[in-house]
Amino acid sequence: MPPTLRDQLPALANKAYFNYGGQGPLPTPSLEAMVTAWQRIQELGPFTDDVWPFVESTVARLRRRLGCWLGVPPHRLSFTENVTSGCVLPLWGLPWQAGDALLLSDCEHPGVVAACRELAHRHGLSLHSLPVADLLGSPAATDAAVLERLEAALTPRTRLVVLSHLLWNTGQIMPLEQVAAHLQDHPRRPWLLADAAQALGSLPVAAAAAVVDIYACTGHKWCCGPEGLGVVALSERVLAEARPTLIGWRSLSHEGTPASGFHADGRRFEVATSCIPLFAGLDCSLQLLETEGSAEERHARLRRSAGDLWRQLQDVPGLDTLLQVEPPAGLVSFTLAGMSPVEVVGQLGRQRVWLRSLDQPACLRACTHLPTNAADLEALLNALRSTAKT
Amino acid sequence: MPPTLRDQLPALANKAYFNYGGQGPLPTPSLEAMVTAWQRIQELGPFTDDVWPFVESTVARLRRRLGCWLGVPPHRLSFTENVTSGCVLPLWGLPWQAGDALLLSDCEHPGVVAACRELAHRHGLSLHSLPVADLLGSPAATDAAVLERLEAALTPRTRLVVLSHLLWNTGQIMPLEQVAAHLQDHPRRPWLLADAAQALGSLPVAAAAAVVDIYACTGHKWCCGPEGLGVVALSERVLAEARPTLIGWRSLSHEGTPASGFHADGRRFEVATSCIPLFAGLDCSLQLLETEGSAEERHARLRRSAGDLWRQLQDVPGLDTLLQVEPPAGLVSFTLAGMSPVEVVGQLGRQRVWLRSLDQPACLRACTHLPTNAADLEALLNALRSTAKT
Repeated sequence: MPPTLRDQLPALANKAYFNYGGQGPLPTPSLEAMVTAWQRIQELGPFTDDVWPFVESTVARLRRRLGCWLGVPPHRLSFTENVTSGCVLPLWGLPWQAGDALLLSDCEHPGVVAACRELAHRHGLSLHSLPVADLLGSPAATDAAVLERLEAALTPRTRLVVLSHLLWNTGQIMPLEQVAAHLQDHPRRPWLLADAAQALGSLPVAAAAAVVDIYACTGHKWCCGPEGLGVVALSERVLAEARPTLIGWRSLSHEGTPASGFHADGRRFEVATSCIPLFAGLDCSLQLLETEGSAEERHARLRRSAGDLWRQLQDVPGLDTLLQVEPPAGLVSFTLAGMSPVEVVGQLGRQRVWLRSLDQPACLRACTHLPTNAADLEALLNALRSTAKT
Repeated sequence: MPPTLRDQLPALANKAYFNYGGQGPLPTPSLEAMVTAWQRIQELGPFTDDVWPFVESTVARLRRRLGCWLGVPPHRLSFTENVTSGCVLPLWGLPWQAGDALLLSDCEHPGVVAACRELAHRHGLSLHSLPVADLLGSPAATDAAVLERLEAALTPRTRLVVLSHLLWNTGQIMPLEQVAAHLQDHPRRPWLLADAAQALGSLPVAAAAAVVDIYACTGHKWCCGPEGLGVVALSERVLAEARPTLIGWRSLSHEGTPASGFHADGRRFEVATSCIPLFAGLDCSLQLLETEGSAEERHARLRRSAGDLWRQLQDVPGLDTLLQVEPPAGLVSFTLAGMSPVEVVGQLGRQRVWLRSLDQPACLRACTHLPTNAADLEALLNALRSTAKT
């Protein structure tokens, strides 16, 4: 019998792990793929004509696979070091005009918010908030409320909307396709930026990624790839309208000459030397996920375990889940009465059960993914019950 | 007998290698250190309270060691993905005024030049050239000419000078300490940016790094670390005056809150998730170099082999070295009459002798480093003689 995915994740051998949304465990075959890539680069190179075909095919293979996952042609992808770079890099090169308005959901990651504040500060833009943190009901009600509030929040000056695909705190899915369609009707057609840190590897993303202008992902969370490699899918208009900011030889169409123009495709936002073995590692992790079923099947499985967890959490004394319904994906957030989230994380950690705390709102977050099994859920529930009692 | 550095570099087992300035070979212990770090992260984490002390100590250890190498307090260092990011990131946050002038040497890397052109385009700055490519004589003559030309090129509007420490094409060392002292007397005290891609790991850099405003390095060339990790040393005034541009949780002093300010130290230019095992790999490579002697001793050794090569190249028919004197460091550039550099690289590569071609000026470049031995030099000279004859 071939090894299961779980068998190939040494991180799960000594703990009940619920932090896939922080960082996913690295499969042993992915680590081996990186070591093999490093050894091959040493054998052929590291800097020789013999090594470039290997480097190029390693990058191209991952670009093609991610193009399939994201439902966009590979030339619209830029590789980045992390999801934040993917969100922020294209923004600095867009043709802003003083007075333009940025509309950010109130569930965006602090890094992206801080970057938008700095952008607003330098270009004389205004920042506005789209409230979605309080949407804790059914997907249908959530979708309707998001669209209604978006309609209310848009003004003639709105030039950018920032909305995560899967909210990292409440765990709600945002209706990006409908949002994108709605923005098409706005006279200024605001750009749509989606932080997909929690989406790639946990949800089917192709439909959303294909219609969003800046759809930024990382490989080291739900994809279980190595840390230090992300990807952003860019719309044709962002490729045409945004100028590169952090420029290096990879951005240039003729890297040997300073007078070179920029690449017309996603490479215009790439910078300089990256760690090629990480590309081999992420490609291996994505292949391992593919053997677990289609994106829809994988999403259904991790939503099932999140639903199991959510239902059982209802019976833990003093525990309140943020969502009033079963979670639409793998994020399950909750509070324990009278306990600080940081304190609970420490107490559970001493029992080798790991989840994380969040600041806004102050809560705990448990993630369920394909490797999550019944024993994990039981360990978490037992630990929470004993903690709630003390 | 302990293994020599060369014994630990599998890349050198099957070739005569002269591209250390493109990418250095990775020592086996450094690859092992990365694998060990990845395994330890899986055992402790990957995202748990238990793993953070390991992550922090891995980063802090490298920061301290690089602080020693660069002669600056560790808080003035920012880690970056590559040398280009280290050059360019701080530039976007400096307080430019329309009309400011940028003075760039004519030997800067195309990526940095393109970034300065874009900066100039967006902020209304002017670009000017400091000619140094034609300085091919002794160190004393070169230093004197650089300072004289600098004096002639500076204007009251000059706000930035960009000058590599070790020129990647001609192989000359630039007198950065004297340049920095000279700029102190300029009424606007222009910032000094040094691309140190060729310097860290090949030259003693502490004296220069301590007086330059932006001293940007990479770990994957002369340091023989993994690709994908660089460092930039920033002056106190750049830390105080430059605002972060590519902002993420690592730039923020309170990463959990969007209203957070920025770190006051070098972390303000760091972005988000990087690959921590690379830090362990680079630290191991630096330690291996340290066992080969002080920075001065190591520089003397690689300059000696560069000198040996330079002298023997004088006897190859049709070959002209760019420098009229023995090279001051490990870069030896030359042309072969009637041969295109790209063609020569291919011909030599088929004999498993690897150097690289450059576009500006069109030439070949061979690098000598600590592992370079007499057999390497002989293989290169034989291959050049047979190529020159054909």
